[in-house]
Amino acid sequence: MSEKFVYMFSEGAAAFGNDMTEMKNNLGGKGAGLASMTDAGMPVPQGFTITTGACTQYYKDGREINPEIQADIFAHLHELEKITGKKFGDVKNPLLVSVRSGARQSMPGMMDTILNLGLNDESVEGLAAKTGNVRFAYDSYRRFVQMFADVVMGVSKSLFENEIDKLKAEKGVQNDVDLDADDLKKLVVIFKKIYEDNEGKAFPQDPNVQLIEAVKAVFRSWDNPRANVYRKMNEIPYEWGTAVNVQQMAFGNSGDHSGTGVAFTRNPATGEKTLMGEYLINAQGEDVVAGVRTPSPISKLKEDMPEVYAQFQDIATRLENYFKDMQDMEFTIEDGHLYMLQTRNGKRTAQAALKVAMDLVSEGMITKEEAVCRVEPKQLDTLLHPQFDKEAIAKADPIGKGLAASPGSACGQVVFSAEEAEQFVKDGKYPKAILVRLETSPEDIVGMQVCQGILTVRGGMTSHAAVVARGMGACCVSGCGNSNKVSISEENKTFTINGHTFKEGDWMSLDGSTGNIYEGQIPTVAATEDPNFQEFMSWADANRRMKVLTNADNPKDAQNAVNMGAEGIGLCRTEHMFFAADRIKAVREMICSRTVEERKVALAKVEPFQQKDFEDMYRIMGDRPMTIRYLDPPLHEFLPTTDEEIKELASEMNMTAEALKDVVVSLHEFNPMMGHRGCRLAVTYPEIAEMQTTAVINAAINVSKEIGKTITPHIMVPLVGEVKEFKFVKDTIVKTADKIIADAGIDMKYEVGTMIEIPRAALTAGQIGAEADFFSFGTNDLTQMTFGFSRDDAAKFLDAYYDNKIYESDPFQHLDTVGVGRLVKLAAKEGREANPNLTLGICGEHGGDPSSIEFVDSIGLDYVSCSPFRVPIARLAAAQATIKSKKKA
Amino acid sequence: MSEKFVYMFSEGAAAFGNDMTEMKNNLGGKGAGLASMTDAGMPVPQGFTITTGACTQYYKDGREINPEIQADIFAHLHELEKITGKKFGDVKNPLLVSVRSGARQSMPGMMDTILNLGLNDESVEGLAAKTGNVRFAYDSYRRFVQMFADVVMGVSKSLFENEIDKLKAEKGVQNDVDLDADDLKKLVVIFKKIYEDNEGKAFPQDPNVQLIEAVKAVFRSWDNPRANVYRKMNEIPYEWGTAVNVQQMAFGNSGDHSGTGVAFTRNPATGEKTLMGEYLINAQGEDVVAGVRTPSPISKLKEDMPEVYAQFQDIATRLENYFKDMQDMEFTIEDGHLYMLQTRNGKRTAQAALKVAMDLVSEGMITKEEAVCRVEPKQLDTLLHPQFDKEAIAKADPIGKGLAASPGSACGQVVFSAEEAEQFVKDGKYPKAILVRLETSPEDIVGMQVCQGILTVRGGMTSHAAVVARGMGACCVSGCGNSNKVSISEENKTFTINGHTFKEGDWMSLDGSTGNIYEGQIPTVAATEDPNFQEFMSWADANRRMKVLTNADNPKDAQNAVNMGAEGIGLCRTEHMFFAADRIKAVREMICSRTVEERKVALAKVEPFQQKDFEDMYRIMGDRPMTIRYLDPPLHEFLPTTDEEIKELASEMNMTAEALKDVVVSLHEFNPMMGHRGCRLAVTYPEIAEMQTTAVINAAINVSKEIGKTITPHIMVPLVGEVKEFKFVKDTIVKTADKIIADAGIDMKYEVGTMIEIPRAALTAGQIGAEADFFSFGTNDLTQMTFGFSRDDAAKFLDAYYDNKIYESDPFQHLDTVGVGRLVKLAAKEGREANPNLTLGICGEHGGDPSSIEFVDSIGLDYVSCSPFRVPIARLAAAQATIKSKKKA
Repeated sequence: MSEKFVYMFSEGAAAFGNDMTEMKNNLGGKGAGLASMTDAGMPVPQGFTITTGACTQYYKDGREINPEIQADIFAHLHELEKITGKKFGDVKNPLLVSVRSGARQSMPGMMDTILNLGLNDESVEGLAAKTGNVRFAYDSYRRFVQMFADVVMGVSKSLFENEIDKLKAEKGVQNDVDLDADDLKKLVVIFKKIYEDNEGKAFPQDPNVQLIEAVKAVFRSWDNPRANVYRKMNEIPYEWGTAVNVQQMAFGNSGDHSGTGVAFTRNPATGEKTLMGEYLINAQGEDVVAGVRTPSPISKLKEDMPEVYAQFQDIATRLENYFKDMQDMEFTIEDGHLYMLQTRNGKRTAQAALKVAMDLVSEGMITKEEAVCRVEPKQLDTLLHPQFDKEAIAKADPIGKGLAASPGSACGQVVFSAEEAEQFVKDGKYPKAILVRLETSPEDIVGMQVCQGILTVRGGMTSHAAVVARGMGACCVSGCGNSNKVSISEENKTFTINGHTFKEGDWMSLDGSTGNIYEGQIPTVAATEDPNFQEFMSWADANRRMKVLTNADNPKDAQNAVNMGAEGIGLCRTEHMFFAADRIKAVREMICSRTVEERKVALAKVEPFQQKDFEDMYRIMGDRPMTIRYLDPPLHEFLPTTDEEIKELASEMNMTAEALKDVVVSLHEFNPMMGHRGCRLAVTYPEIAEMQTTAVINAAINVSKEIGKTITPHIMVPLVGEVKEFKFVKDTIVKTADKIIADAGIDMKYEVGTMIEIPRAALTAGQIGAEADFFSFGTNDLTQMTFGFSRDDAAKFLDAYYDNKIYESDPFQHLDTVGVGRLVKLAAKEGREANPNLTLGICGEHGGDPSSIEFVDSIGLDYVSCSPFRVPIARLAAAQATIKSKKKA
Repeated sequence: MSEKFVYMFSEGAAAFGNDMTEMKNNLGGKGAGLASMTDAGMPVPQGFTITTGACTQYYKDGREINPEIQADIFAHLHELEKITGKKFGDVKNPLLVSVRSGARQSMPGMMDTILNLGLNDESVEGLAAKTGNVRFAYDSYRRFVQMFADVVMGVSKSLFENEIDKLKAEKGVQNDVDLDADDLKKLVVIFKKIYEDNEGKAFPQDPNVQLIEAVKAVFRSWDNPRANVYRKMNEIPYEWGTAVNVQQMAFGNSGDHSGTGVAFTRNPATGEKTLMGEYLINAQGEDVVAGVRTPSPISKLKEDMPEVYAQFQDIATRLENYFKDMQDMEFTIEDGHLYMLQTRNGKRTAQAALKVAMDLVSEGMITKEEAVCRVEPKQLDTLLHPQFDKEAIAKADPIGKGLAASPGSACGQVVFSAEEAEQFVKDGKYPKAILVRLETSPEDIVGMQVCQGILTVRGGMTSHAAVVARGMGACCVSGCGNSNKVSISEENKTFTINGHTFKEGDWMSLDGSTGNIYEGQIPTVAATEDPNFQEFMSWADANRRMKVLTNADNPKDAQNAVNMGAEGIGLCRTEHMFFAADRIKAVREMICSRTVEERKVALAKVEPFQQKDFEDMYRIMGDRPMTIRYLDPPLHEFLPTTDEEIKELASEMNMTAEALKDVVVSLHEFNPMMGHRGCRLAVTYPEIAEMQTTAVINAAINVSKEIGKTITPHIMVPLVGEVKEFKFVKDTIVKTADKIIADAGIDMKYEVGTMIEIPRAALTAGQIGAEADFFSFGTNDLTQMTFGFSRDDAAKFLDAYYDNKIYESDPFQHLDTVGVGRLVKLAAKEGREANPNLTLGICGEHGGDPSSIEFVDSIGLDYVSCSPFRVPIARLAAAQATIKSKKKA
């Protein structure tokens, strides 16, 4: 076994060359902080760190710590004994330690901690003798037995608490502190008996056994349910494992010259540069957390213990200078001696993140490039969307939780149909509405636009509701039926979730950033433009290689996106334009046509609408690129469904309702996602592509004249799987476009490219690239086809996959770099080899996801395209990706 | 332009080093034969061949023959003038030529031919002078004008025929031969006028113009509708193009010492070694085809012209010795001189193919290895399935045509439901039944088994009906609704196709090898075991590298497959076992269970059935490998659909019908193919995999004891897309299996492998391979996912793809080597790198397709698995693949 699994705090910094990332990866965040502080000569109770690698090994070995690692642990324990001059389990001067988890990323409260380890029937006397405080020693011992039994063995805490209550009742006292040393001695005996009764063996007196069992318990706690939930929420890989820190105890509860506290070097809410924190005299860490006593602000320490305060202030400054970031520190004071127990980069609000990063630049501590990397792109969301009032939300209890599909908070009155939402909001009946639906469909778009928030029972992160809501920047919680007991009747206008029933008009509040659902009204505060935002984003832009475009198919979204910094439109879906009431009939007529002639008649009705749509868009986008994707969805999405609609359409088409019904039935598909859609429509009905081309080119010509600049239309063919298929549709487009351009007598260029969204397109990208001007990776569909599951249906089984750690994140949210990413990389490479001028981008939902953006930057794509409200996130993530790849190079 | 586009007949053999394949690829089949015969010094009217490459270039150049190629043609024409001593368009001794197509593979009657080219107002006189036959010269001229106008310019033949009829009426004669030279001269004038009226310009007098226009016409005819249909039927790539042969005319119609005929060196129906053929004295080729006069058998030529016959016999023998195969020859006799116009390997029946190949071995002409390559694997079908009586079918007219989904011919009385088919056949009401359905579903299996044939309105070559029918060896025509006017009412028991209505009990005949549908009874003859079959197949087996397994999931199919030479089962689908009436209820109970406990209760009911199924299969297969695939299809396939079924099941499950209906609705999927199926079922409900493992292992233990050999179960996990998913299911299997085996106290090995049928599985095959014992490529699903279309839905648009030459064959029938094949190759390579012991096979429908078999052999797979009746085909195709790859190496 060549890997080193245990490091003294004093070894860590040297071993990893002070590389904080490497240190964190191996020693965990806490271990790395302790090693760094030790290296810097700060007062740290000494100890050692068992690496994250040891945790991984523990799981590999079937949840056992193998003998080599155990030997390593004890070797370091002896080293610690030497350093401290104390002995593990000693009757005179016992070494007591804390055993604490510490993952790469902090997971506060998620894993287990054991304090006062090393106490047994002998060393407790040593502790009493050494401190001259028998009560303290036995209180520590009974706490240790209780904690060990709970954490290591899973014996219920209440069994112990009951005994304390019983004893207090017997003695007629109220508080634990009223129990004296003899009481506590008795309790220790009782506690050990409980342990023995429950475990079938005596409480371990051997501190070595205690230690190994505690380390195992911490390793095990990496896999406990709350840790798993936290990890999934924060996207921390299960493979990482946790490190374990074994550290000499420092007792903040050993008298009035002792205490414990936490502090930040800057205000984590605002970013203001001022030492902030609180502490408790004569207390241990758990007392601060428990909130029984009210802690004092850190500034009061200056009065209580001026020397300690000065020393702490000095250390805080040194730590900030060392880590070049705002620090979050834990400390303990034992008999007037300051001990640092932890330091880490402090968590902060988006506003604080911007301010701290920019201040650190002004202070000369970091470069602008580094500052750009200091803000989590996802955090920008809170600057861009309304949020609940903090105090109000703190008091509210969610009644259920769906998927956090589109961020922001919303509060409004429940409506059950998009038409009613539209009408009621317009009429002022419900000024603020929440649309609650089984699932939304393209026809609902107008209604969705007027609502504060959208709640759906079915559908995932990339369901129709989620995608559209993100596009609009509206709050959306989707798929709440997957993890709650839910029933909905859109007819009867009732929705029940976990026993709470909503009727139309009832108030509901939604948090699209967490997925939480609330009853009643929770006030929201509007998104406020942070004064630092624009400048910070300009730093990001200066460091960005990839362009950031947007997915928009209406003028409002397009304008929003431009305001957010979009450099063009990477995906303008034309089908969304087909649903508006004034044209859906003609669209249906087109679909139900039985002959080319009928279809042409219907298309002629649609064409002026399409042209106007494009003109409106071009007026906003000017000569920025706008990539127009031709008709894509399965035709059935447009079909009339009710008998009335069929009757109406039939009469318009001069056919019987029965005949039309036959047509509708004949268009039924078993798997519409894999059916007659995308460019397959343009192959079977070239006249559709002709109509769309006519509309695009005429619109571009008209608006070019208006704005005095020549627009270059970008036309995108969806769902291509074979070069000849692309070539066929391209030929139709070119023939139509060239004629219009020639007739207009102007010099207009245009580009024809394709989505790469079918595995075969990626696998034959060399051929397709030779014919295309650009590739846009449609990673939504590419993910579906590559994984072989539909995003609409996957919700039913993906939870089981997360529970069993088969997948750790939703592949529709984060690009799967191993499978889907391999196809994207291969297609990018072979496409470019065939055509060095090929432009490459991504327009799936992943285009707004930071980790996916980093990946596509690394494989050299030219742009990402995402929904308007994700544009700033994408700009920042793209900048960070560029910076990271520069560093690597 | 470095490519040589024109070859004299005398140049061809040398230019391509006598490599027949190269010659055919460039010169076409006819050109290659003419070049070879010229090379061998046989009497061939000289000429030259314009290559297939020139045809491709013609299409590339926008349907024009570019000047370089034209120049090349004329250079060779001058060469021909030199050789013949005649001059093109000459008034004294004119050179006349035929211009004939000749593709790599013969496409009889599909493309155009022009005879007597070179005639004009002057050279016709030369011909008259030279032959001393004015009538003959002018008859030739008027024929040429007519043929040129028709073939080259598309002027309707009837315009000319009408004039002939008019003239005959004027003269009061009946037959063309009654028209004299003057009449024909008049006709020429009239014909040229017709030409001019229709074309707006005079009939071209310049033979060079005639030639180039004729060559263009032949090139163009490569893309005519009937050629396209033929090509698709015979899977001839559009890219190949046709060559054009320009050859001096030989006149078989120049008197009684002239004639023309065709002959085979062996009997193409039986393979018997005897010169067979027929000829006509004083006739041209077209007269033989027209069938106006009855030709004489070739043996009579011996009496008519003994010298010519001897010469022909000698040439025939030489040709057979040269090509080492049965030849199909065309010849013309001009004034007692024999001219060979064509020779090619003759088409033959399956029976003849076997006999000729084996006789050639006995005669020492070819090796057994070569013999194995002489039989088209597909041809074996006709030896294995019943066929229509030849005379009866020759007289029958099909009333419609569907997809040739499963070969063989069938005749029976129409029934509209599987249950009724079962009952009526059992009762003897309809001893022979044809099942006619909109589409079949798994519940129909028992009914399908008793029918002679199956006709479906919907569905493609890999629809349920097609797959099941091929498995059973039953005739099936599928998807007849795609290309016919069809209506079906299963309720009213009527089916109408192109105006022909069938009621229950009406007789229908089906040809599953062509897709033809007939009214009434056409007698069939049973499949007869060819006496040569077994020996021939043993030669194939001796040359075969890959194993051939079968797809079977019931004892009957398994026994059939073993009889056909299957070496094991590559795919035993377990779900088919779930549909039988005695267990479907328990299966439904399992699916609709809301808790693990409920599900276990249901599974316990299914388990004994499963175990018995496997025992029955093992009893037939013994210790041959049997790969058992765990539950795979979307659950909805098993669900109760009618209210009655729901009610019944609900009462059995102690729940209300409403509650069960809710469960059924909640199981609805948008895209079931991409939904909750395959190993996803085993992840969400591990108890299903436990039950199946228990059944498999117990069955194997029991039958091992019975047969005294230890069976090694092969367990296959379907639809894996990620190694951790496979590992999870494998862990469940291993845990369950190991316990049973340990409890039984026996030493039984077992293998756990996976389907590779999802693109991501192929892309991560390195990881999965490290954990799996075998990969079985499920190329049906892999094709669906890679192309992004569902085979059930693709029928709606694939025709447009064929028409536009985007795809030339059904990717579900022939493995797409470019896209899907690339994934298979990559997965095979990376899987083996990770695990050198990994066994690799294919079990999709492609496992029985010769071209797909050749591909998977080339990438090193270990076995193919196909439906029982395709086993002999696969054995032969695999042998041919091995031989081909040996040759390449």
